[in-house]
Amino acid sequence: MNANVTQKINKINASLKSYFAQKPDLIKSVLSAEEYSVTAGGKRIRPLLILLFCEACNADSDSFIDVSTSIEMIHSFSLIHDDLPCMDNDDYRRGKPSCHKQFGEATALLAGDALTFTAFERIYDAAQECVIDSKTAITLVGILSAASGSYGMVGGQIIDIESENKQIPLEVLKELQSKKTGALISAACEMGCVLAGCDEKRQNAREYAYNLGLAFQIVDDILDVEGNFETLGKPIGSDSENNKTTFVSLYGLQKAKELAKEYTQAALDALDNFENAEDLKELTSELLIRQN
Amino acid sequence: MNANVTQKINKINASLKSYFAQKPDLIKSVLSAEEYSVTAGGKRIRPLLILLFCEACNADSDSFIDVSTSIEMIHSFSLIHDDLPCMDNDDYRRGKPSCHKQFGEATALLAGDALTFTAFERIYDAAQECVIDSKTAITLVGILSAASGSYGMVGGQIIDIESENKQIPLEVLKELQSKKTGALISAACEMGCVLAGCDEKRQNAREYAYNLGLAFQIVDDILDVEGNFETLGKPIGSDSENNKTTFVSLYGLQKAKELAKEYTQAALDALDNFENAEDLKELTSELLIRQN
Repeated sequence: MNANVTQKINKINASLKSYFAQKPDLIKSVLSAEEYSVTAGGKRIRPLLILLFCEACNADSDSFIDVSTSIEMIHSFSLIHDDLPCMDNDDYRRGKPSCHKQFGEATALLAGDALTFTAFERIYDAAQECVIDSKTAITLVGILSAASGSYGMVGGQIIDIESENKQIPLEVLKELQSKKTGALISAACEMGCVLAGCDEKRQNAREYAYNLGLAFQIVDDILDVEGNFETLGKPIGSDSENNKTTFVSLYGLQKAKELAKEYTQAALDALDNFENAEDLKELTSELLIRQN
Repeated sequence: MNANVTQKINKINASLKSYFAQKPDLIKSVLSAEEYSVTAGGKRIRPLLILLFCEACNADSDSFIDVSTSIEMIHSFSLIHDDLPCMDNDDYRRGKPSCHKQFGEATALLAGDALTFTAFERIYDAAQECVIDSKTAITLVGILSAASGSYGMVGGQIIDIESENKQIPLEVLKELQSKKTGALISAACEMGCVLAGCDEKRQNAREYAYNLGLAFQIVDDILDVEGNFETLGKPIGSDSENNKTTFVSLYGLQKAKELAKEYTQAALDALDNFENAEDLKELTSELLIRQN
């Protein structure tokens, strides 16, 4: 990662941390659970994409750090609920006990719930502080809510659950992925364009996101076979244990790796529509060779 | 209920129903679970308060039916998650199996999650359709998200959980109630003022809501002792079984009834600050003598 990207990640982390600086006694436990999950690490790809797409549209992104973390709140919420016993029942997340193992199920459930609202509060706050205008703010709300709900990420999770223990066709796997992982990534890219005042670039951003999302998921599937607990922070082999259809189970490892490369290239090509996309191109290539 | 109020409730119900008219195959189960809970009945008090406060400010509320349902989505989400095994573990809600009994835990969890986003989408949609301007829309987002999250309803739920099986002092019970039930009621009243373009009335709306919220909760506590399954739609006596501190356990039935009356009167007095509050006054008095 280059200096600009590293600096942005540090600022994103600082913003996330500072949100949880105050914890009133009576609600301390739920805020602590939220903080635990939000600050447990993670690549911060979604807020980073917001900021880098804003810059790719030739706008300054410095004042948008706080509002960019809205999407990380949504991402963290989804991980907390995904790990719950009634969902994937995962004991570990990023090498640490998952939220419900650390705080109990009820608190984890509520921490996830709360984070969905924090996301929209951060957008509202940016409008209150005149960092963005009302039109921009409500557009961000629209993009983020649509990408997160039944027709977006949550929809992908329900398809995922209902696809367990059975082989699903490629088109369903792609639909699953485009909702479960892709929708939020696409939202991030579009939000960056909107913050830059370049609504006309949203279609190009979606094209990039579609391909990056597929590449990203295929790499995830590969890592679940080839990764290890130390770098991944969670047990490997869970897809196969749960009889999940993945790009690897459909295509085999070799072909999956080729596909990841192809989609990454298509994502890179889509970036040619942006003037200032060098950092984005670098990040995109790095995501293909990531270890976690 | 008078004709105006009944008509509004019918329109709210029709709007909620029509939102779920389309259900794409792959995400049908989660949308069905959402629809099941949202359309399972309920008094629609929160959207009704939005519309009646709008009218109390002398504005027409006819075009705000759809956007008023945003708050009912949040209310339904909270009921679904509240009933889950790791929370109150309730098998019944409004006389029917609770969402997770009907659809399974994972689907119920996701249905609740999805509804949080649907709420904000409805506000965005109203802005898109030029029913409200962007400034009004983002203000509604701010009110609704703050009232729902850690510092609002979810915060109240965590205090509730942590207060189980122990006696808590009156001030904690009031804080619990003001967050768990009061915050969303207050949000509804304020949202009505904002929709009417009367931001300066929000403080009066909050004063009304504070008193109504307390009266409402006290009546809830009384019904858990004196109600019955048929009118209430759920088993009575659960507060006492769970050793919950309630206004009844703190004050006894007689004093609790007097308090409910006092807070109702204070709520009615707060309505004197509004020009056109006859329907609101009627509703307020009826809430005191409700059976469910």
